Amino acid sequence: MPPRTSTLPTSRPSRVVVEPVRPVVDGGNYSAKSAIGEPMTVVADVFADGHDVVAAALRWRPVTTGQQSEWQEVAMVSVGNDRYTATITPNELGRIEYDVVGWIDHLETWRRDTVTKLDAGLDVTSELLTGTRLIDAAADCATTSQENRDHLAHLHRTLRDGDTMVLSDARWTDIFWRCTPREPEAHLARPLPVDIDPLHGTFGAWYEFFPRSAVVNGSRSRVGHEPDPQPSTLLESIDRLDHIAAMGFDIVYLPPIHPIGTTNRKGSNNATTAAPDDVGSPWGIGSPEGGHTAVAPDLGTVDDVTTFATACSGRNMHLALDIAFQCSPDHPWVPAHPEWFAKRPDGSIQYAENPPKKYQDIYPLDFESDDWQGLWNALADVFRFWIERGVTVFRVDNPHTKSFAFWEWAIAMLRSEHPETVFLAESFTRPRVMERLAKIGFNQNYTYFTWRQSQTELREYFEDLATRTVDYFRPNAWPNTPDILTEQLQHGGRAVFVSRAILAATLSPSWGVYGPAFELLEATAVREGSEEYLDSEKYQLRTWDLSSDDSLAPLLTRLNQIRHDQRSLRNLHTLHVHACDDPAILCFSKTDPAGVGRPVLVVVNLDPFERHQAFVDIDLHALGLPYGADFDVVDELGGVTYRWSGNMNFVDLAPWSASAHVFSVHRVDEAATDDIGTASTTGTAVAA
Amino acid sequence: MPPRTSTLPTSRPSRVVVEPVRPVVDGGNYSAKSAIGEPMTVVADVFADGHDVVAAALRWRPVTTGQQSEWQEVAMVSVGNDRYTATITPNELGRIEYDVVGWIDHLETWRRDTVTKLDAGLDVTSELLTGTRLIDAAADCATTSQENRDHLAHLHRTLRDGDTMVLSDARWTDIFWRCTPREPEAHLARPLPVDIDPLHGTFGAWYEFFPRSAVVNGSRSRVGHEPDPQPSTLLESIDRLDHIAAMGFDIVYLPPIHPIGTTNRKGSNNATTAAPDDVGSPWGIGSPEGGHTAVAPDLGTVDDVTTFATACSGRNMHLALDIAFQCSPDHPWVPAHPEWFAKRPDGSIQYAENPPKKYQDIYPLDFESDDWQGLWNALADVFRFWIERGVTVFRVDNPHTKSFAFWEWAIAMLRSEHPETVFLAESFTRPRVMERLAKIGFNQNYTYFTWRQSQTELREYFEDLATRTVDYFRPNAWPNTPDILTEQLQHGGRAVFVSRAILAATLSPSWGVYGPAFELLEATAVREGSEEYLDSEKYQLRTWDLSSDDSLAPLLTRLNQIRHDQRSLRNLHTLHVHACDDPAILCFSKTDPAGVGRPVLVVVNLDPFERHQAFVDIDLHALGLPYGADFDVVDELGGVTYRWSGNMNFVDLAPWSASAHVFSVHRVDEAATDDIGTASTTGTAVAA
Repeated sequence: MPPRTSTLPTSRPSRVVVEPVRPVVDGGNYSAKSAIGEPMTVVADVFADGHDVVAAALRWRPVTTGQQSEWQEVAMVSVGNDRYTATITPNELGRIEYDVVGWIDHLETWRRDTVTKLDAGLDVTSELLTGTRLIDAAADCATTSQENRDHLAHLHRTLRDGDTMVLSDARWTDIFWRCTPREPEAHLARPLPVDIDPLHGTFGAWYEFFPRSAVVNGSRSRVGHEPDPQPSTLLESIDRLDHIAAMGFDIVYLPPIHPIGTTNRKGSNNATTAAPDDVGSPWGIGSPEGGHTAVAPDLGTVDDVTTFATACSGRNMHLALDIAFQCSPDHPWVPAHPEWFAKRPDGSIQYAENPPKKYQDIYPLDFESDDWQGLWNALADVFRFWIERGVTVFRVDNPHTKSFAFWEWAIAMLRSEHPETVFLAESFTRPRVMERLAKIGFNQNYTYFTWRQSQTELREYFEDLATRTVDYFRPNAWPNTPDILTEQLQHGGRAVFVSRAILAATLSPSWGVYGPAFELLEATAVREGSEEYLDSEKYQLRTWDLSSDDSLAPLLTRLNQIRHDQRSLRNLHTLHVHACDDPAILCFSKTDPAGVGRPVLVVVNLDPFERHQAFVDIDLHALGLPYGADFDVVDELGGVTYRWSGNMNFVDLAPWSASAHVFSVHRVDEAATDDIGTASTTGTAVAA
Repeated sequence: MPPRTSTLPTSRPSRVVVEPVRPVVDGGNYSAKSAIGEPMTVVADVFADGHDVVAAALRWRPVTTGQQSEWQEVAMVSVGNDRYTATITPNELGRIEYDVVGWIDHLETWRRDTVTKLDAGLDVTSELLTGTRLIDAAADCATTSQENRDHLAHLHRTLRDGDTMVLSDARWTDIFWRCTPREPEAHLARPLPVDIDPLHGTFGAWYEFFPRSAVVNGSRSRVGHEPDPQPSTLLESIDRLDHIAAMGFDIVYLPPIHPIGTTNRKGSNNATTAAPDDVGSPWGIGSPEGGHTAVAPDLGTVDDVTTFATACSGRNMHLALDIAFQCSPDHPWVPAHPEWFAKRPDGSIQYAENPPKKYQDIYPLDFESDDWQGLWNALADVFRFWIERGVTVFRVDNPHTKSFAFWEWAIAMLRSEHPETVFLAESFTRPRVMERLAKIGFNQNYTYFTWRQSQTELREYFEDLATRTVDYFRPNAWPNTPDILTEQLQHGGRAVFVSRAILAATLSPSWGVYGPAFELLEATAVREGSEEYLDSEKYQLRTWDLSSDDSLAPLLTRLNQIRHDQRSLRNLHTLHVHACDDPAILCFSKTDPAGVGRPVLVVVNLDPFERHQAFVDIDLHALGLPYGADFDVVDELGGVTYRWSGNMNFVDLAPWSASAHVFSVHRVDEAATDDIGTASTTGTAVAA
């Protein structure tokens, strides 16, 4: 025999295998994401060789630097084909880790096999001897509770007295689960991390507006392009918050509030030279008055930001600031830290370019600077500065043009200090880049929703978001932004605004609008073929008549109310798209993984010009309904209830009346059961 | 400021990110699989922040215990959306590991941006200054070859002389790739392992027969159930090898050849009591003559196995032995190592059971034995024993009823000693269990092919095999085995045997038949509803008239010839199923990742009773053909050539004439190009 090249394990390995299914990101290299108070379902494959019964438990604990927390444990339940699941609801912010434990349940294996023999009329004398030994061993376990010791002693006596019927009682399964000696246990290859965010990290409605245009010339009901408007301050724009809160929004997002540079400032409609009274783009950050930790004097002071944030909190909203790491030529960092910027051979600082376009008003930061440590610390300190002043939500401008390693480092550090912080990545770029930003810590990401408009496009995109990347990439769907007025919005009229708002608010747990322009159906582009607004607020002051009779505020209010009432809309992974032969109709549903909320079923006519009548083919199983069931669908938008039957059901949606249904789904026999339990693979948490 | 909880990296991290796509198994916890001389395509996502050009290289090296091998390197090419690919062809057995390296190509970024500006008519004075500095830095690199230093010096001079046209020459891309300083490089989170098997580890045709029935009463052309046949020996059955080799099979697989127990031996047709002259099942292993390292006296000696293996090699075939780790009550281990078997309370050894069925002729081994180390070593030594006697292919019986940890340990050890060894897992059980066996080291697995019979079943199953598990799970598709005579084979007649052979041989890189029964269309089950053969060779001797006019040998010969001629059939991951509205027609293709072999397109009529005429909708892109192309399809089964045009093409397949086409695909303009390059994502290996 040749010498053995591989030595035996020192102790007998478990016969059980445990493999993670979800949530897991890159095998545990990155954290998955969940939110406080939200059900988190863990799925794992647990199996052994042969035919013995396996048992599985989910364990989890907070990951706190410097101290070891106790594991908590719940039973996992089998959902078929070796897959097990359990749902927990973490109630503290910060990182947790989970493990899945599997073992052979020798007692339950014995019970199953003995019952099979009893049912076949075979002699079980030998089995009863084997069983009482197993029972006694389990009763002797240090981990077995006194109550279960009593149960096991009773079982021993009953079997000794010849009563084998007792074995058919399935309640033994649960007792055996707790008492069977588990050694050797199988575990995941390593515990897997999950970040527990505040709820608005995953679920929220965002409203963006420019505070300088919030209250023009002292009035917030004036309309049109004022000849000589005066900008409003942060404190004045607090007036707008009641309007936003009344519509049910959760996050108020302001474009950058910092001093704006004057060198090469852009004028109205992005003119390359600004008129003397042009207010400039908020993204041209930095002037002698300060940079990323200063407030533009026209808007107010740093303290006013805290006041504004407090005003938001008082209305159950969060303030989100826009952090754009770029500098105008007048930014204090330009003279103070010239090494943080790339230079041209003549020594001048390299401005931004997309040849042949030049952006001479913007200096990018150089993440390959020799003083990259100084730069990284300064950038992280910008977030710290605002966090300490009461801001915990940040919309980060173009993070994909800054080093991934910087974001990974900075977000991990900031969230370990302040786990309540939420970062939204404003990045419209290639899929792998956007996914990377999500992996390395951004809580949410802007999406391609804005340009996904057909049934096929929406289905494919959201099915991908709901499966492949769902453990870490959280979409925030925006029908419009100050940068993006889609061709569809330009030409589709009110019906497009309506359907896009309904889609964003129901497909995606987080959604947002560039508010005044969306409420008031602003649809004129600066020129044909452009997605830029005419007279964009980015470059000039605007006035908005928010009391207009045409305003979409009532729809937005109703949508946000439905989102708060229907728990099923909080998640993405239960998304199920139902079939419809008419390509203008998109039909989808969501269910509540906690089994509390009703299923929500949405049917949208994507055609803003024509009425569509069609049958939708409902996958009843996805709604937790039996084959062929009758059920009621209550239109939460319109209030009408329909009795539907079986899978094929008729819809009739005209853009001039109702573009969509947002149904809650009710069992017809609901008097008995009140709520529909979902048919999802949700395990019941059983305390160990 | 609070104290920082996360320190900066010690050196500036790369701006580039490298993520593996394939091959990778569980994030690198297990080895992927490839074969010697076969193209192995590595796919990775490589990208950076911003808009700079990234470059990527694949590195790989043998993993040899105790010594560090040198990395070899090839360029990876972009295939869009940040995905890069390279194909290598390892030429040594054993484990390799690969890494993917990514870096910013500052020179190529500069060239691209400067050419863009030149094209836009802009001044590039500043760019040329920047460029010459980059060029000089690259020329100074220690790793830059003298030839490339000369190229760079020439470029410097040319630019200095004012000739900027030179930059439009795309050949600079390749030179810059080699010369740009790479630091800091990005790497995979860890190198990923791949096992390089012999070719028959992934691609081979298997033929199973019972040597004791190979030559009955001295004649191999007698037919029927002899009243008193005498078993043939291993040496006599060498006579059969020419017949098997002539059909083009690669592996000759024998059921267990060990002494067969007599206690509780099964009789003909699995009778619970054997007649005195019943030969017993080869899987009832062990008698006083020996166990797993002995040969049944009726068959011959251990030396005869070596002789038989050598006879196989002489015909370009490999011998595969069946290793079934279970014991008859007469096995020498029963008295020698009673601790390796589970006991009943009365002290007797526990026989196998599937209540209410009892298998009293079989004692399972107890992998939870207190002497599990002794048992594991003894089992590993069984393989060593046969490897040292010239057997390197093992078909392992029911590995899923033995501890996964044992297989993982044993196979890793045996393959590190003997990387030429191939293990086929005979396991028909749940998906996760079969996949686990593949992950932990089995080179190949039996599959559900046997029961996947409709177009939808075959498409879904093989598409899953070709994608989700393709890096580690290698199917071996069998139309029949001594245990499995499907209902379809029992009732479908010759056409089913034909179509199942064609499907197995072309869908799966490895396939096999339980030979004599398949060749001779044996289709009678022991009873209605059973998949067991009547008068199964498992329990009795049989004679086979291999010269029958009805024999399928000509078809099997032709199929194996096509498999050897058409390199596209060696792989699974290029499988593409084409659409056909007729559910009786399955149409699929494969291409050669090395770009050498022609595409193969297979069209099978799955209905053994009716002629089907249908249009197949060919995805021309999958065949490397342009939209709307004309192309020739040459039926390698029938020899007929058809000129096809565009995607919709007509087929007419009747079970009584031709059940299937196996086409090679030829471009119409082939005179010019000879071979069709596949449109797959194959990178060109560029030596560094």
